[in-house]
Amino acid sequence: MLCFSEIILENILQRRSVRNFTGEMVEHSLLMTLLRAAMAAPSARNRQPWTFVAITDRSTMDSLAKGLPFTKMLYKAGAAIVVCGDSTINLQDGATDLWYQDAAAASQNILLAAHALGLGAVWSALFPYEDRSGHVRQIIGLPGHINPFSIIPVGYPTGEDLPKDKFRPERIHWERW
Amino acid sequence: MLCFSEIILENILQRRSVRNFTGEMVEHSLLMTLLRAAMAAPSARNRQPWTFVAITDRSTMDSLAKGLPFTKMLYKAGAAIVVCGDSTINLQDGATDLWYQDAAAASQNILLAAHALGLGAVWSALFPYEDRSGHVRQIIGLPGHINPFSIIPVGYPTGEDLPKDKFRPERIHWERW
Repeated sequence: MLCFSEIILENILQRRSVRNFTGEMVEHSLLMTLLRAAMAAPSARNRQPWTFVAITDRSTMDSLAKGLPFTKMLYKAGAAIVVCGDSTINLQDGATDLWYQDAAAASQNILLAAHALGLGAVWSALFPYEDRSGHVRQIIGLPGHINPFSIIPVGYPTGEDLPKDKFRPERIHWERW
Repeated sequence: MLCFSEIILENILQRRSVRNFTGEMVEHSLLMTLLRAAMAAPSARNRQPWTFVAITDRSTMDSLAKGLPFTKMLYKAGAAIVVCGDSTINLQDGATDLWYQDAAAASQNILLAAHALGLGAVWSALFPYEDRSGHVRQIIGLPGHINPFSIIPVGYPTGEDLPKDKFRPERIHWERW
């Protein structure tokens, strides 16, 4: 019997980027769970500068795929989440902008929650690429103050994507370099 | 009885930034588990551009705290992990550098794994701040090609830091903005 901590650590270690989906749609209630996980991420000064567009419409996902050279898996995904930063929140106190770090933490939470639910997901970068961001902005109608950070295709895995062991002890230094 | 997915989601939702530690040391074996979780994060093109310095030495943590205005919790932490990017890996194929997004995903995995183990942790930004990065670089002897991204004090929580419900349904847009 696995204890709670082992179950959670296994989820972190076994999660992999899933690029091969069955094409089955993903229910709204599951997407809500992913979004709840996203918003549980930490953010600099707890500013929570994020906002999300959840997409299940087939033709929107196809249009997004068309202009995103590295995100063709959208054609078979059951949903997609665009993680964005709201620059009116980012800059509200004039602090240096860490919104993209907060959006990255939220993106990672989505991937882990998807894996926990038996879904697959893959983080595809939009920021800082103007061409990719501009395409997404146009298709889903993002206003100027909303900056797309990542697009995460979500779906039911075909089983082709396998976990990798990426542990490299030589990347750990103890006490100092 | 909670099912596996509920246990994992609860860990994501209940995790909070822990700034109040008992002062008890954190064992090497637990830090290894955190670092294993960190390296299970996804990275752009699977380049895994990260490297880590794990610190348990009291006087090193005190020296770090001295020069980091927002990371005074190091004085009571049981350990600290500095998440870094190795610019010789980042730039190896001349691609635009996404190392800080990869380092952010690794940082989030550390926070979640710490919570799973009954530890507390808090993500403190070093990048893109020259002053904070420079201080850390000097104390732990980072060479020029290693760029500090975050410092994560880790320790046993006093219990003062409580989870926050940060779910905001108004931050979710369906299908398009």
